[in-house]
Amino acid sequence: MIDELRALKQIKERFGENSKDVAVGIGDDAAAVSTNPENYVLATTDSQVEGIHFLKNTISPRQLGRKSIAVSVSDIGAMGGTPKYILATAGFSENEDQTYIDSFMNGIKDAEQEFDVKLIGGNLTAADKFFVDITVLGEVKKEDVVRRQGAVIEDIIFVSGTLGDSSLGLKLLGVNKDRNNGDSFLADKHNSPVPRLKLGSELARKKLITSMIDISDGLLLDLGRISVDFGLGAKIDLDNIPTSKQYRKFISEFCDDKYELALSGGEDYELLFTSPKKNRQEIFSLSAELGIQITEIGNITGDKKLNLIIPDATKKEIGKRGFVHFSK
Amino acid sequence: MIDELRALKQIKERFGENSKDVAVGIGDDAAAVSTNPENYVLATTDSQVEGIHFLKNTISPRQLGRKSIAVSVSDIGAMGGTPKYILATAGFSENEDQTYIDSFMNGIKDAEQEFDVKLIGGNLTAADKFFVDITVLGEVKKEDVVRRQGAVIEDIIFVSGTLGDSSLGLKLLGVNKDRNNGDSFLADKHNSPVPRLKLGSELARKKLITSMIDISDGLLLDLGRISVDFGLGAKIDLDNIPTSKQYRKFISEFCDDKYELALSGGEDYELLFTSPKKNRQEIFSLSAELGIQITEIGNITGDKKLNLIIPDATKKEIGKRGFVHFSK
Repeated sequence: MIDELRALKQIKERFGENSKDVAVGIGDDAAAVSTNPENYVLATTDSQVEGIHFLKNTISPRQLGRKSIAVSVSDIGAMGGTPKYILATAGFSENEDQTYIDSFMNGIKDAEQEFDVKLIGGNLTAADKFFVDITVLGEVKKEDVVRRQGAVIEDIIFVSGTLGDSSLGLKLLGVNKDRNNGDSFLADKHNSPVPRLKLGSELARKKLITSMIDISDGLLLDLGRISVDFGLGAKIDLDNIPTSKQYRKFISEFCDDKYELALSGGEDYELLFTSPKKNRQEIFSLSAELGIQITEIGNITGDKKLNLIIPDATKKEIGKRGFVHFSK
Repeated sequence: MIDELRALKQIKERFGENSKDVAVGIGDDAAAVSTNPENYVLATTDSQVEGIHFLKNTISPRQLGRKSIAVSVSDIGAMGGTPKYILATAGFSENEDQTYIDSFMNGIKDAEQEFDVKLIGGNLTAADKFFVDITVLGEVKKEDVVRRQGAVIEDIIFVSGTLGDSSLGLKLLGVNKDRNNGDSFLADKHNSPVPRLKLGSELARKKLITSMIDISDGLLLDLGRISVDFGLGAKIDLDNIPTSKQYRKFISEFCDDKYELALSGGEDYELLFTSPKKNRQEIFSLSAELGIQITEIGNITGDKKLNLIIPDATKKEIGKRGFVHFSK
């Protein structure tokens, strides 16, 4: 058993130095390499392993096929880019039959159409447990690329959508699919996440923001990745964390702390980004134009830690915490 | 359990149509997409799963790290291209400790230097069994790209190096590491294959060849992929199949048919290519220049099957056969 965060740190140290054509290497949502004077090719990879990332009794093969691509194109969106090509490796065990695979492929087809991407290659293998590993190639204008690094003190911190729905949906799926009385909102947020591609590319194209990341490991952990990792801090107001009415309805059944999954649940695939104060109005205009909720949750600070302002007016300092598959 | 070849056929049917910027899609050694007027970006992915592709007691983690990249860059070479960037997904189980992982990373580092490639991204996950999935991005001048399709009747069929060593080496490793009395040639061919990158790119740059593939699933299966798959056939002379003296020494201990592993053993990572007769001399000159054995093994025919000319002068028609991990 290894520690994922420690291993990632080690990998960044050993492989992190960039070469001439590598504008963004290890340690961001996607890598960016220069292949022509105007654009970068963006590349990112992500995997779904049965028993680790999903259970067959809570997600259909078609949803899984689509989701495996959705979560990877989300990383391209978080760089301000547009996904274009997919390579897919699937490891099938003795437990998947032709029907399962057909349905999984339908999900890949769904994703091709929904995200306007093209499957260009891949690999099939046998495996003990079903897994899928997706590489997405995308592109972005060089002048538009947005990195995790870039925020400055006093920048506003924004987040799209609502947080915690996906992880709460997973808990609902785990205990009883019909628990939420026919309302599949939370389960759908888990099984069929919608990456914010248009929002990411528009924020980048309009040069409104200084840093961006998609929230895959929980708000707090990913917030640390755009602030603490670069010697900065963040102050966020718990009262401002956007949650859905469905989240507020069910959270108390699973967690004593009503903020827990919104802060650290993971798999939100919402965008977390920072901007100078002067761009606030334009960001809210974009929110209205795209019909996507954008919420101001706090500010970048200089004190290298995350501060949460809790509604009862006490101030609590917390470490980075989040949902890390590896610590399971 | 699914049939890999059938599934691949189905995937080609469902996802095979190419779009404007996709010069080569599913079904070749690597995909080629247009990102600038002169070059294609090449992309390919391959995986190694413990218990399917390797056993921990026959390959060191350092060899495995290097090999996982070697076999993927080989696909880029088979398109006439040059590998440039790597994305690596590693799934670690509870059985790998920090020492194993450090050593595995040393192998990745070895490959970076040996093949002049750069790790730009990746992903760590938990898994039941250790696996690694490597995506390689490369580039090739548009005018130089070589595909599986392109051979014409009467073209000469060439192969680099010697065949069957890798699969025979695996058998030796399986029974007893020291069986070959201190000569690790065959085992090394299995654990530390050397992709023919320079040969592939030179054949392409000099416009000497009409089709090319790297032999990963055995000569016969891969020969079918550059001939039978496109309505052509091939006639090859068994006497001409290049084998090493170590192969000839040990093959009879494992196989009644002394050609078996040379024809169908798999994991050779030698280049199989075709050229017009007029280029024969220039190809042998290149062989001498690079110090790489190149052997003429037969000709492309028009009869949509593979014909083997067997030394006792009978002619035997065979189906496509080869080593397919999935049929295990």
